[in-house]
Parts: sequence; C-alpha cells; structure tokens
Amino acid sequence: MNVLDLPRPYLLFLADVTDLSYVKTAAGLRDWARDQCVAEWALPGNPLRLGLPVMAPAEAAGAGARALVIGAATMGGAVRPAWVPALVQAMEAGLDIISGMHGPLASVPELKEAATRLGRQLIEIRKPPASLPIATGRKRTGKRLLTVGTDCALGKKYTALALTHAFGRAGVDVSFRATGQPGILIAGGGIPMDAVVSDFLAGAAEALSPAAPADHWDIIEGQGSLLHPSYAGVSLGLLHGSQPDVLVICHEAGRKRILGLDAHYPIPPIEEVIELNLMLARRVNPGVRVGGISLNTSRLSEDEARRVIEAEARRTGLPCADPIRGGAAFDQLVEACLEPEAALAQ
Amino acid sequence: MNVLDLPRPYLLFLADVTDLSYVKTAAGLRDWARDQCVAEWALPGNPLRLGLPVMAPAEAAGAGARALVIGAATMGGAVRPAWVPALVQAMEAGLDIISGMHGPLASVPELKEAATRLGRQLIEIRKPPASLPIATGRKRTGKRLLTVGTDCALGKKYTALALTHAFGRAGVDVSFRATGQPGILIAGGGIPMDAVVSDFLAGAAEALSPAAPADHWDIIEGQGSLLHPSYAGVSLGLLHGSQPDVLVICHEAGRKRILGLDAHYPIPPIEEVIELNLMLARRVNPGVRVGGISLNTSRLSEDEARRVIEAEARRTGLPCADPIRGGAAFDQLVEACLEPEAALAQ
Repeated sequence: MNVLDLPRPYLLFLADVTDLSYVKTAAGLRDWARDQCVAEWALPGNPLRLGLPVMAPAEAAGAGARALVIGAATMGGAVRPAWVPALVQAMEAGLDIISGMHGPLASVPELKEAATRLGRQLIEIRKPPASLPIATGRKRTGKRLLTVGTDCALGKKYTALALTHAFGRAGVDVSFRATGQPGILIAGGGIPMDAVVSDFLAGAAEALSPAAPADHWDIIEGQGSLLHPSYAGVSLGLLHGSQPDVLVICHEAGRKRILGLDAHYPIPPIEEVIELNLMLARRVNPGVRVGGISLNTSRLSEDEARRVIEAEARRTGLPCADPIRGGAAFDQLVEACLEPEAALAQ
Repeated sequence: MNVLDLPRPYLLFLADVTDLSYVKTAAGLRDWARDQCVAEWALPGNPLRLGLPVMAPAEAAGAGARALVIGAATMGGAVRPAWVPALVQAMEAGLDIISGMHGPLASVPELKEAATRLGRQLIEIRKPPASLPIATGRKRTGKRLLTVGTDCALGKKYTALALTHAFGRAGVDVSFRATGQPGILIAGGGIPMDAVVSDFLAGAAEALSPAAPADHWDIIEGQGSLLHPSYAGVSLGLLHGSQPDVLVICHEAGRKRILGLDAHYPIPPIEEVIELNLMLARRVNPGVRVGGISLNTSRLSEDEARRVIEAEARRTGLPCADPIRGGAAFDQLVEACLEPEAALAQ
C-alpha cells in the first residue's frame, strides 16, 4: 500500500483543550467530512463543543465509529498524560487511534501496551507510507487538477476541497487527493508530502494520483509554493509527479510577501507566478493550462471582496473567485477548469 | 552537528569483489582523495588491486588510518556474511566502519555487538544528519558555486571536484561541499541530499554551505536535474538552499534525452536549461550568473572532443571545457567562474 488508508468513520477527540483555535483539525473534519464524523468527545469538565452528537467511545463504536481522531493540538506537539486513560478507553471500545501530532503515540508506553494487548492500530498520519517508488515520468490516464499557491497557508487545500465538491455536484467522477495531514483526515487517505524522503517526492505524487478512467478527475491539494525558498522543492516534486492537466492558482488578496520568514521574499505579479508554474508543469504535461485564480478574500468586506475579484478577473483575463464566498464567479471557475474552451488563457 | 563529519584517513576495503566496476567508490577515493587513503585491503584470494599500499587493519591503524571504508558494492546492497569477520577485525584494530550500502551495518548482529563492545562507530553515509533546519532564505556571506546538470550521471560531482582543485591551485580559499555518498567520502563530510526529508531539503542545503568569509568559495556538488521528472524537486531545493553566485552547467556531449526512464524526456537546447536554472536561482540570489559549461566528452576522440567543445563555446558565447581533458579551455572556465567580468553572458 503506497497511500495511507484510514479506518472511518471517526470519533473526534477534543481532550481538555478549550480554545477553538487548538481544535482546528476537528473543526475542519466537521466542516469538510461531516458524514465521516459519528460524534465528538471531550474530557470531563471541558465545555468545548463542535455541534456534533456527544458520545463516549463505546457509544460511538456502537454507532459505527472505527477510529478516534486526536482533534486537538498542544504546544509541545505531544499527547498529554491526562489524555492517556481516555485513549486506552477508546481502544478498549474497539477504536483505532489516529494522530497527526509530532510525538509518536507509540512512544507512550501505556498506549503501545494497550494497542498490542487489544490488537488496535496507532496510526501516525505524519508518517509517509513505506516503499514509495521513484517517479517514472510515465503519462497516466485520467485528468488531474493541482492547486498551486503564491505562498503557504492561503487556501490551497480549501480550494481543492471546494472544487472537488463542485465537480461532484456537476456529476463528475472526482477524487480529492490529500497531501497534508488535515486533508488526509478529511479524505481518509493520502500522502504527507513534506515528510517524504526527497528522492521519492515525485514518485509519491505519482502514487497519490494513479492511472484512472479517462473521464475521472483527481483534484490534488498543493503544498508550499514554487516561490517559497524553504519549500519550493516539495512544490516542484508534487507538480512533476502530479502531471496536472489544469492548475488553479491560489493567492491571498493583498499578500505582498512570503510570510513566516524574516528575509524579504516579495510575491511577484500573479502573471509571473502562472508562467513559472506552467513552464515547469509543461515538462511533464505539455497540454497543461490554468483553470483560473482562487483568491482568498477572508480579510476583506463583502463589497471589497467583490471589487477585488472582479478587478483581478478583468486584469488577468482568467476566471477568478473566492471559493468560500462561492457565487457565480466560483461557478465560472469550476466550468473553466472542466472545459478547456472556457479557459481564456493557456 | 548538521553535517556528517567522517573520521579520516581511510583504509579502503575491496572485500571479495573482483570486478573494478563494483569498487567505484574505492577507486574514486584513490583518484580524488589520495592523501586520505592510507592503504587498500582485500579478502584473501582476491587479486584486485587499486595501486595503493596493501595493509591489514592493524598495520593500517598503525599508519594512521581511523576508519575502514567499504569500497565495494554488491548486487543486493548489503554486507555479505563473508565480510563480517574482516569488519570485526578492523574494529578490533581500532577502526570505525563507514558504509554507503543500502543495508544498515547495525542490522548485522555481529557488527552491532562488536561496535558496542569495542566502542567503535558504524557510520552510514546514506543517513542524513538528525535535526536539519527548515530553510530561512536568509542571505549568507561568502561565495558559492553550484554545478547543475541537464540530467543525472554526467559529471556534476567530477566538475565540482575539478573546480575545487583548480580554485585551490589559484590560491583561492575553497571548500568542496558534497551532496552524495561518493562525494561525502571524498570530502570527509557533507549531506546526502536525496535522503533528506522533503521539508528540510533547502534547509539542509543552507546548513551544508554556512556563512563564510567574504572571499571564501563553497563549490557545491549538484544533484539530479531540474529537467528530470523524478528528481527535479531535489535539484530545486538544493538550488534554493545553496543561493549560488555562480552556476556551472554540466552536460554530456550528444546526450539527447534523460537516461534511465522508459518515458521520453528530451534534453532541450542548453540555452533553455541555463535560462531555467538562472530564473529559479534568481529567487534566492538576484546576482547569480553562469560561469560556463562543463561538457563531458568521454565518449569522443580527442579531436572530436576539441571540435565539440569549441563549437559549443562559439555557439553559446560561454566558456566551455571538459574538466577531465583540462587544458586552456578549462583554465578559461575557472577564470570565468572566479571573475564576473570574464563571464560573457549573465
């Protein structure tokens, strides 16, 4: 097995974390994989709720849950001692444990012992599958769309998910292909690209979107950015291995520089970003085209957002939309991705 | 420690391998790090010789050797049982063991036990150092030259070594920075880039060539090729993390396509390869320039080689040389790398 395949549906574990911003993983699953979330469960005394049914592990297992997902984050990135009895209780109820935390579950002796005793899996979604192949560069059947960004953390996953849903609504045979942890939980599988050994980077991307029927679409979650001096290698390996037919360029309105670096790396005009991505993608798929621009306008008012989106569409001649705001602009973007003749620029 | 640091000098172990093409690692060390090779040693009955003094481990240790390097390769990539007593003997003589084989030394119980008992190191040069950083993109002091290729296996390491020697002869303060196993053995350190986890790719390259005095040169061994659909991500991470001031483009005369793939990936005209590398390198160093072209002409006669090298220099307007053949053309290439005004094209 070259790609993670997670037991589902899930029980979302909020532990003793009371701040919503530390349970983003669980909230993302509620929003994007609601049908895979049987229930939520917090430790006694924690008032935090996500609006799902509340069930303890035994009840959740009875309702069909197959795994508990650690949906809370800690500063240190490890399971807290106070969580351990609850996790053992979940395994006793028949659930596997899924974690995206830095500290491996198996490094906690009680968890390792319980998993062995009960025959349960401790699944680390940070860990890429073993025995990934070297990329072959061979053309695969089926269609592929990759979301690429001008930077990290501006909506590549969100855009891929929104497009997947829209393609599905349009009756298209479509799969979301996840390349990071939150996406992997939502999809129930995928490959954490940033954890793959460099030699196998493009090979992992090839394995992630295998040959498929001619009218099937894989919508692949982008990682990093070709413009990012820390992660461009990951982005290029993913681009090459994905052999995309269509790129959707993701940008945050108003972001002028790469975030999170003290060195100054400006974000060039989006036309340059498009040309760079197309040029490198053509190496593996000469027919690649841009479907349009996904513009994150979450910092703008409704009016400002509409103005910015319209201006960007006019300026570039490409469909431009904020998937979160949806609307006619997003419908046009979806249409342009699906139909080459609707795309105004190659 | 972010970079491997190997105990030297070496005793080169040829084991029971009788075919020269399976002791390339040892032969490379003899050719490129002669002063770090105390002696060679084969198993009884193996007539293969590299022309170094022949010494058993105790004698080699007495002559200053600090480590035995496994200089032979096997089809399976693992230490053969027949080698084990010899390797234990080397550890008993006070030598560490250095291996670039796929199978880890510590997976052989007798070796692991002997290393523990004798306090010797089993060093795997395939394994990148722990705790590599994420790249910061910050500009570092000192000068850097990176060899980049139109494909794999055509002379990027050889070119970097030849330039390092030439810079040294010219009185330049220079370090060779190795990114693959044979180079790491020659340099006595480095980072095997293809084994680094993707997220740390550019960070590893930053760690490999740290800030240095303004007139110091790092000559960095390239890996893969931006044109190679399997390895371009590695090449881009290395390019970005290296922040090269000078690129030397390595090509094999007459090679028309990427080797080792059944899919057909043509090698475009070298001007396009240069433009692609410069464009991506400018992101981290706007002043990057091309020093010239290193042309591998090993398949050509002396006359043909001279004609091809001269034609390529005329056609591109860049210094062009085969480092193995050396001569005035190579001297010009070295000069152009060192002196911006001597480079005819940016």
